[in-house]
Amino acid sequence: MKALYFDGKKAVYKEDLPLPQRRPGDSLIKVVVADICSTDKEILKGYRPDFKGVMGHEFCGIVEESPDPALVGKLVVGEINEGCGDCLYCRTGREKHCLLRQTLGMSRDGCFAEYLAMPTRLLHVVPEGLSPEKAVFTEPLAAAFEITEQVKIEPGMDVCVVGDGRLSLMIAQVLALTGAKLTVIGRHPEKLDMYKTFARTVLETEYRTESGGVKDLTADECFDVVVDATGSRSGIELSMALVRKMGTIVLKSTYAGKTELDLSLIPVGEISIVGSRCGPFEPALRLLSEGKVQFPPVELYELADWEKAFASAAFKAGFSFE
Amino acid sequence: MKALYFDGKKAVYKEDLPLPQRRPGDSLIKVVVADICSTDKEILKGYRPDFKGVMGHEFCGIVEESPDPALVGKLVVGEINEGCGDCLYCRTGREKHCLLRQTLGMSRDGCFAEYLAMPTRLLHVVPEGLSPEKAVFTEPLAAAFEITEQVKIEPGMDVCVVGDGRLSLMIAQVLALTGAKLTVIGRHPEKLDMYKTFARTVLETEYRTESGGVKDLTADECFDVVVDATGSRSGIELSMALVRKMGTIVLKSTYAGKTELDLSLIPVGEISIVGSRCGPFEPALRLLSEGKVQFPPVELYELADWEKAFASAAFKAGFSFE
Repeated sequence: MKALYFDGKKAVYKEDLPLPQRRPGDSLIKVVVADICSTDKEILKGYRPDFKGVMGHEFCGIVEESPDPALVGKLVVGEINEGCGDCLYCRTGREKHCLLRQTLGMSRDGCFAEYLAMPTRLLHVVPEGLSPEKAVFTEPLAAAFEITEQVKIEPGMDVCVVGDGRLSLMIAQVLALTGAKLTVIGRHPEKLDMYKTFARTVLETEYRTESGGVKDLTADECFDVVVDATGSRSGIELSMALVRKMGTIVLKSTYAGKTELDLSLIPVGEISIVGSRCGPFEPALRLLSEGKVQFPPVELYELADWEKAFASAAFKAGFSFE
Repeated sequence: MKALYFDGKKAVYKEDLPLPQRRPGDSLIKVVVADICSTDKEILKGYRPDFKGVMGHEFCGIVEESPDPALVGKLVVGEINEGCGDCLYCRTGREKHCLLRQTLGMSRDGCFAEYLAMPTRLLHVVPEGLSPEKAVFTEPLAAAFEITEQVKIEPGMDVCVVGDGRLSLMIAQVLALTGAKLTVIGRHPEKLDMYKTFARTVLETEYRTESGGVKDLTADECFDVVVDATGSRSGIELSMALVRKMGTIVLKSTYAGKTELDLSLIPVGEISIVGSRCGPFEPALRLLSEGKVQFPPVELYELADWEKAFASAAFKAGFSFE
């Protein structure tokens, strides 16, 4: 089959890879659409040097073989973390944190291929009428829903998202559903335009002093919940300045290396910092299906053109296998 | 009156200070017992250079004058933060975080004196039968109860306190009330002995490698909730290693300056960090009154002997005005 294979150093397009082997409990899925996530780009930069295998973890496909006959022929999406099933985390609903977990396209064969095999229990059937091109947003959108799983957001709250990229657009739409007063802070006027129908938008420079620090803010100018989706070290500094006393910062983005923080601000202001990662597929699929969250169309490529797809400046680029 | 006065640089014992003036709403209190907190020692080291006034914020006294006649003659303790009453924080139950707040013994005259005047609304009547020497623990014990106000602690959880000092003994007793499986980690075998009737105790060295790093721990060895009460920079590093994925670190202690942290551990492990400061007086007074929390006796001094009191190695030292 055709596949984009990571050899430990670089991506290699192959046309002769054997079909994946199903282990007990696995289903075999014919991939219809697979999208590129920034993590895939990080892998090319060396984020997972120990990994060798098929790349990719965001997909929508059709079940061809399965221990559950009702699934055969169904359009599905799949959760990416497969735990050992035995440890404390797997036994207490935290399979995604299993220390022995295997992750699609990061430690086991992923979805940038014509076929993929994965545990049947991690599959979710796509509701009727939701296209593969839209269903493929389930995994990243689920990560946005993790925020409202973790933090109680009330309609009376002032909430802000720092960052105006792809992840922010998902997060902001999820937060808008809560009815909270929503502000999005970003660096790109043209990206901020996408938020204007449902949020107040502010350029980050409005909060910066001439020397690049953060302006002193009144309690009214601050927020009860600040979501840092910048993926940059300066995001946490700005978030600490934007959050109200007894408020919550949600750390959604990761970046390598250590960051210097004045930790005393946390107890003195009784601030909470909540780390947030993968989330629940069910609400993401449902809201996508109901059209309550909307994204620009995915730019689709042939897998052979993977370099163009990775270089695309589109909101989201991916591969079509049809 | 006698008072211990901070002149901006050092403490001065005075015998000729005028009685404090009551502002509208204030009560006048004759101090019976006042305890020294580590913050008072920090003030002597320069923590509050802008402050000039009577030191001290932990006290128990008798109301002599009050707009509420029912309070006169009653034994009381008092909350230490007085907000402006008008701002967002004061209007939303966060008076202790008011940016214009005045704090007893830190920005307005405190309780190391024969008399003190403060807002009547911040006073709490001491239950019958609770001695002033015990009631004076209300303020620091309330800070321990703030943890269970903020974090849901279940009896099935593994919970640990890092630190074996005064604050830890209060926190550990409060956490023991929840029925959670409690571990206290400290550096001093003789201090850890105080915890053995209600908690498992472990020497911190058990978690350290020979190079001073933190050993790799299994999920079972980790904790759902870790309370850092060390007051040292190394506490957060150890806490990050001790907490389970999706677990919570409570930052209870403050220390000046910046700390280097690998922030990516927070989203990747979906860890929460909760800052915690002053807490509710009511449960603290009630549990002290019911004898459900116990502390070694306070070592009491004459105010004139303040230097001996500040140098005391007792669990808690203070002043008696009777």
